[in-house]
Amino acid sequence: MIIDLNCDMGEGYGPWPMGDDPGLMQYITSANIACGFHAGDPVIMRDTVRLVLKHHVAIGAHPGFPDLQGFGRRNLQMSPEEVYAMTLYQIGALQAIVQAEGGTLHHVKPHGALYNMAAKDRKLADAIARATLHAGGKLVLYGLSGSALVEAGQAAGLRTASEVFADRTYQDDGSLTPRSQADALVQTIDQAVAQALQMVQQQRVVSTSGKAVGLVSETLCLHGDGAHALEFAQAIHAAFKANAVEMRAF
Amino acid sequence: MIIDLNCDMGEGYGPWPMGDDPGLMQYITSANIACGFHAGDPVIMRDTVRLVLKHHVAIGAHPGFPDLQGFGRRNLQMSPEEVYAMTLYQIGALQAIVQAEGGTLHHVKPHGALYNMAAKDRKLADAIARATLHAGGKLVLYGLSGSALVEAGQAAGLRTASEVFADRTYQDDGSLTPRSQADALVQTIDQAVAQALQMVQQQRVVSTSGKAVGLVSETLCLHGDGAHALEFAQAIHAAFKANAVEMRAF
Amino acid sequence: MIIDLNCDMGEGYGPWPMGDDPGLMQYITSANIACGFHAGDPVIMRDTVRLVLKHHVAIGAHPGFPDLQGFGRRNLQMSPEEVYAMTLYQIGALQAIVQAEGGTLHHVKPHGALYNMAAKDRKLADAIARATLHAGGKLVLYGLSGSALVEAGQAAGLRTASEVFADRTYQDDGSLTPRSQADALVQTIDQAVAQALQMVQQQRVVSTSGKAVGLVSETLCLHGDGAHALEFAQAIHAAFKANAVEMRAF
Amino acid sequence: MIIDLNCDMGEGYGPWPMGDDPGLMQYITSANIACGFHAGDPVIMRDTVRLVLKHHVAIGAHPGFPDLQGFGRRNLQMSPEEVYAMTLYQIGALQAIVQAEGGTLHHVKPHGALYNMAAKDRKLADAIARATLHAGGKLVLYGLSGSALVEAGQAAGLRTASEVFADRTYQDDGSLTPRSQADALVQTIDQAVAQALQMVQQQRVVSTSGKAVGLVSETLCLHGDGAHALEFAQAIHAAFKANAVEMRAF
Repeated sequence: MIIDLNCDMGEGYGPWPMGDDPGLMQYITSANIACGFHAGDPVIMRDTVRLVLKHHVAIGAHPGFPDLQGFGRRNLQMSPEEVYAMTLYQIGALQAIVQAEGGTLHHVKPHGALYNMAAKDRKLADAIARATLHAGGKLVLYGLSGSALVEAGQAAGLRTASEVFADRTYQDDGSLTPRSQADALVQTIDQAVAQALQMVQQQRVVSTSGKAVGLVSETLCLHGDGAHALEFAQAIHAAFKANAVEMRAF
Repeated sequence: MIIDLNCDMGEGYGPWPMGDDPGLMQYITSANIACGFHAGDPVIMRDTVRLVLKHHVAIGAHPGFPDLQGFGRRNLQMSPEEVYAMTLYQIGALQAIVQAEGGTLHHVKPHGALYNMAAKDRKLADAIARATLHAGGKLVLYGLSGSALVEAGQAAGLRTASEVFADRTYQDDGSLTPRSQADALVQTIDQAVAQALQMVQQQRVVSTSGKAVGLVSETLCLHGDGAHALEFAQAIHAAFKANAVEMRAF
Repeated sequence: MIIDLNCDMGEGYGPWPMGDDPGLMQYITSANIACGFHAGDPVIMRDTVRLVLKHHVAIGAHPGFPDLQGFGRRNLQMSPEEVYAMTLYQIGALQAIVQAEGGTLHHVKPHGALYNMAAKDRKLADAIARATLHAGGKLVLYGLSGSALVEAGQAAGLRTASEVFADRTYQDDGSLTPRSQADALVQTIDQAVAQALQMVQQQRVVSTSGKAVGLVSETLCLHGDGAHALEFAQAIHAAFKANAVEMRAF
Repeated sequence: MIIDLNCDMGEGYGPWPMGDDPGLMQYITSANIACGFHAGDPVIMRDTVRLVLKHHVAIGAHPGFPDLQGFGRRNLQMSPEEVYAMTLYQIGALQAIVQAEGGTLHHVKPHGALYNMAAKDRKLADAIARATLHAGGKLVLYGLSGSALVEAGQAAGLRTASEVFADRTYQDDGSLTPRSQADALVQTIDQAVAQALQMVQQQRVVSTSGKAVGLVSETLCLHGDGAHALEFAQAIHAAFKANAVEMRAF
């Protein structure tokens, strides 16, 4: 039984920090580093790469929409060609920094609205998969479990990692409950830990209607921001350890 | 007798084009492509890379200050660490696009105010040289002939290309006459052609005071914008051809 | 019979010009000036305001999404509160420049994707109407004829100007034929002139299916970019003059 | 004896907060609100204006260089015309928001590198003074005590407020000790309080060499960021109160 624990990192910008990247390092096995479009400037990227390499955690590019104010969380109607070019651009920028620091880029995980749109829109998903392929280095493409992005990655011949969330609830079709709904979030850390274990050990999740739904669970997302990020990461990590689930990058 | 003819390319942004890149292609041997900070968005970068590869012209990264409004021509007081990180970022972004299109990045030439500041400030020059080195691929560093940037490149173990200008006048110490002075520009195309030939054939230039000044001349800059860009490029190219000066990338 | 002829202006940015603003001045009665988010930097805004004031043409703010690369033409999922604040911000910025130059701001016309989204989404339309109202100065709100934006403006107690297009075709319900369809554009300048006259003189248009559709026509949009912008503006202007249609700002 | 206590506010951006604006409100008499170029987006500006109006604190515009990554703290070589236009733009944007919320803009204080450059460069200072004048509303111009900016404001016929710092040391000529020097900062809160009282009560300060230097002290800057911002503000406020120094906006 193996799981990858990934976390978004380096999401400050200029004078503004975000999250406790150093504190989370011991609990994760892969880090998705912002690439300057939704967060992360070149200096922060370099510093974050150094931090991650020091902890022997796998490094991924975390490309997003060019929208600092909206933190890449607002849908932006880009053409597949625009998405392809800007994804390749961001991967390349991080890749150069990683190589300069003596590391190797391991994966790509789109951010925010780009991640969500690519989960449903196969053309955008294909554009991201092509950019990931063309960046070279046999990068793994991380996408929402069951999404168009994972399909696009596989169709492009990439290795993919199906991502699941311990702190979000699921619907009967295996999709995440939209944040607009009242029951979108798992209420307690205990429930989140239980869901995480079930997803990894049984490759399924209990939906909001009580139905058991199959779910490929290869990488689990730990959120780096929020008041309880560290506590949450600790609890998940401890539970996997106690249950002999091996934690390592895909 | 060999000279490289380089030209800045891909300096549009979004809906705004700049220069006649296709028209200039036949006259140049290396192209410096803007990397998104002072000009050039990911789509334009990709399109320009394709154009340049089609013409078998050497591709260089043309990193600049993050200043679209000022087109990277306004001095910005960045620390060497900031310059290092942003230069590496921009090189990496273009490098990924070049490789995706089946090409190989050949050189790096800083743009505008970054170029001018690095000509005099050795710390900035060192930062750019380090970024060029760390980007891998044995890139050639283009800098103003006789500048701190060329020195920094050589000190870092990089191959360098000393750049000269046919349409700018020189001072007794081999530096360019500042644009603020009345006699900064060479007046006619004929004079520019004569200066170009002298610089390449004799490795020297006649200064504004009439003195012959030695000048390493390895690459000559053709400006892509301006009303007479094409005419100027044609004339220089024809003169070199007529005088059996071989034109090829460094 | 009265019509306002409006045109988008000041849509360059930094080193990049766009359109022939001075050439179009004699044919228009109101100018919509870009406010720095999709195009137009503070210096260009000031220069454009001076040009427009010199020609005694009415000045409008032309706020858009914060998206230089996409020229404000890509849908961006902003909340009404975000749209309200950014619209007010852009109007205020231009208003200060207009007043500094001795003029008075006359109207507001949203740009590109913001214009199109607000034509259909009443919440966004209300946000723009509120920003227009709160900016003071009894500004006129320009919106697509028959759109939610015109309704929102009227509901907010603003004067509104219903805008029509001579070079776009219309559907049976009075909406514009989407640009994705083959017959979205009026083919010739003659046809466009005929449609312009009909819209203004009869307040109706013939749809693509041949049906006569009523259409409030208070301001007609002249496009400032494109190869035939000037020729088109001349022809429309001449036709209105020949038919005794008075041209002046709303 | 009167002093104005001013503080920079609204210096977050998008998802990134900065400082404890609500906590500081009770200690200040005027607030300088970032205008979107170095920090502050339209929504944050609106929210900050509301907060400030609720506390009956005077509102000022805090324009800066267009440099989010560098937080407006990096010198940018702009022409006076560019500085004029961008300052007017930023004042106007905030002014519209303030008026929409039922308030009145009170003053202008340039930020960071713009403030420092305008303290020494009279042409930039004049550009800022002109923009402040042209924005209307009889705005007060805040500038470093003894600086070119205060002179430029007075020459333009503006009311000015000479600003002093309790936590920075001064040199014999009345200028601030550069941050690059070891003794640039006042070491303890007690010393800062003592310096603040002396500056206000005696209109002079003891320089690093021990000399008493005359200093017009009309507004004192409280820094909003930093670990001890609140504690520092409390101490200064308490000392002025205990010494019957009236605190109110200029």
